[in-house]
Amino acid sequence: MQLSIGQLPRGFRSVAGEAGLKGPGLCDCALIVSDRPCNAAALFTTNLVAAAPVLVGRELLSRHQAGESEAVRGVFINSKNANAVTGPTGLENTRRTASWLQKALGGEFFVMSTGVIGQQMPMDKLEKGLRQCIERYQAGDCQPEEFARAIMTTDTVPKLSFREGQGYSLAGVAKGAGMIHPNMATMLGVICCDVAATPHFLQGCLKRAADQSFHCISVDGDTSTNDTIVLLANGASGVALEGPAAERAFEELVTEICVDLAKSIAFDGEGAKHHVTLEVLGCQGDSQARQIGRTIITSPLVKTAIYGRDANWGRILAAAGRAGVQFDPAETTLKMGELTLLENGTPCPFDETVARQLLSQMQVCVSLIVGSGPGRATLWTCDLTEEYVQVNADYRT
Amino acid sequence: MQLSIGQLPRGFRSVAGEAGLKGPGLCDCALIVSDRPCNAAALFTTNLVAAAPVLVGRELLSRHQAGESEAVRGVFINSKNANAVTGPTGLENTRRTASWLQKALGGEFFVMSTGVIGQQMPMDKLEKGLRQCIERYQAGDCQPEEFARAIMTTDTVPKLSFREGQGYSLAGVAKGAGMIHPNMATMLGVICCDVAATPHFLQGCLKRAADQSFHCISVDGDTSTNDTIVLLANGASGVALEGPAAERAFEELVTEICVDLAKSIAFDGEGAKHHVTLEVLGCQGDSQARQIGRTIITSPLVKTAIYGRDANWGRILAAAGRAGVQFDPAETTLKMGELTLLENGTPCPFDETVARQLLSQMQVCVSLIVGSGPGRATLWTCDLTEEYVQVNADYRT
Repeated sequence: MQLSIGQLPRGFRSVAGEAGLKGPGLCDCALIVSDRPCNAAALFTTNLVAAAPVLVGRELLSRHQAGESEAVRGVFINSKNANAVTGPTGLENTRRTASWLQKALGGEFFVMSTGVIGQQMPMDKLEKGLRQCIERYQAGDCQPEEFARAIMTTDTVPKLSFREGQGYSLAGVAKGAGMIHPNMATMLGVICCDVAATPHFLQGCLKRAADQSFHCISVDGDTSTNDTIVLLANGASGVALEGPAAERAFEELVTEICVDLAKSIAFDGEGAKHHVTLEVLGCQGDSQARQIGRTIITSPLVKTAIYGRDANWGRILAAAGRAGVQFDPAETTLKMGELTLLENGTPCPFDETVARQLLSQMQVCVSLIVGSGPGRATLWTCDLTEEYVQVNADYRT
Repeated sequence: MQLSIGQLPRGFRSVAGEAGLKGPGLCDCALIVSDRPCNAAALFTTNLVAAAPVLVGRELLSRHQAGESEAVRGVFINSKNANAVTGPTGLENTRRTASWLQKALGGEFFVMSTGVIGQQMPMDKLEKGLRQCIERYQAGDCQPEEFARAIMTTDTVPKLSFREGQGYSLAGVAKGAGMIHPNMATMLGVICCDVAATPHFLQGCLKRAADQSFHCISVDGDTSTNDTIVLLANGASGVALEGPAAERAFEELVTEICVDLAKSIAFDGEGAKHHVTLEVLGCQGDSQARQIGRTIITSPLVKTAIYGRDANWGRILAAAGRAGVQFDPAETTLKMGELTLLENGTPCPFDETVARQLLSQMQVCVSLIVGSGPGRATLWTCDLTEEYVQVNADYRT
């Protein structure tokens, strides 16, 4: 089955509603529902200050993994209000939202929120939007792109990704543009698929896919209170993943979707003018390569230099040097596109005009080789611009 | 002895010279010399990619601590070129600079550099500036403020601090405005005093003072390749620190100077419009308080909100939550000036106009109380503005 933008894997439909959180006529809440029970996996923010939906989501995941949840049926998301640092009232509001869904549609739902921290959810508005979503779902609507738009905050583009497997399909949707940092990003994401798989397998699969995608991006180094990604598998295709080869093929598709979504988040970073892909090579292991890469893609000095079209590679090396990973600067090589800037620790003379032309393109590729080990990582980020500052100086007002 | 801006502790004199690195007529190198041997302490960057002057400085410190160095006589600094990632040639250039000083003045000198990474030092220019410094020193000049100006890069103000002890005095000078982060900042600093003290005592004293000052500031989270601070004691006052009380009094003065210099660096952050003082209270220990504080003062989202005069305290709490220190969000209180924004985990209603007025002042004080423990820390930073981005997009060109 070849999915188009208007379709989701069998048995899933998504809709959007107007709760009035964003203002009149704007979709700001969204619902995805499976017509049958799903197995689910989820990853949540590592931030100690976890929002109410994260706390409630963790409970649901535990019960689901222990076989004690009712049927998991889907995900409901609102934007504009994060329901974070809202105390017992915030928790109560998330539980009420889940119970409205349960009463109307049966089964259990992950509830996610994104937006401003520290304000109580206006529950009258939220309920209105939720009822609208339920009506639209019950009317048979399916609006994946509207779903993706409804959950946007400072995002400038909706973020969707689709893949086909052997007799099954996957679709992913995500949001995020600021407060983005590995483990995890300020992001919400849902991936749904119509294979049959166990919660245990799905959880391992999502974790490994996230390590290569959402944990390899940064916009500003800030980890949010609300990060959540959920993977749902409803089995509607009739395909079950049997044997390691089928599992590996599925995991590759999940990883591809996660990478698609992660890249689209990193490249939609607030105020971004450049899309930066960084490869770190030659480390002892992949995790060391990721650690060096994360330090580089978080450095404001690296990001402002790229914005300024300045091949100031010294800042890249300085960031690598403070990553806490051992390497020999004298064996380090740095390339920007085809241009070698540093070779085995020695600066290479290069044509500044060529470098500037290279950095005038939106896509910038940087390779850092720190030795001859097998460890490698690819990471994605954007540049740091005046517009990032403007967006974030004005965000709440 | 009451020091004025034109004076240094007995036996010390400092001068500045024009090497032509910054352009015609601008001082860009500086020399401080003691007329007699000093005992010395020093701290260096923790960045793996350490600049040539850092590598050579560490060697000198080791020899000095082992009693194997010649007399330490002072410090020579150049700005505009960091002599970092410059390979064996860079090392050779630092050693040559030290040996010129040794031949002309006798004894050993710490050499420091600050500026662009990855370019070889133009040694003909540097030698010209160094000769000029030596001539001015030999002519009897003493120019502490010119010294402080000569070592500035993107700094907007020279950074000096003076203190008086019982029969002795101290003076400190530093530079730094970007690539500033704990352990340590992109900063160079020299503190000189005319007491007599052992290298061992001086090293401990400098380390503890730095923990409460230079390790409590951040401009952009980037640790540089060149950070160095040197403490010199030449004994010219005839006062020796005898007994714990005298040592404690001295250490307090060193700490005060370090705090003065650290604050002036943080508040002179590139493009800064606000001076932010953060107190973290109620932790188990001081180091936990520092860790929470560092995460907050490094958060681009916190810093852009302060720039935007937005009392978006959720970002402060979100940053604290990802610091890796255990605390209970439900027992957390947050104040901005006299305004309580969060009390024991519950958001407090506050007057947005009052908050905006508060944030319209240049000085912003934030207190975060995360429990009832004795651990506390004070930290300093600036806001993140469009001007930071402009300064750093254009730095090298």
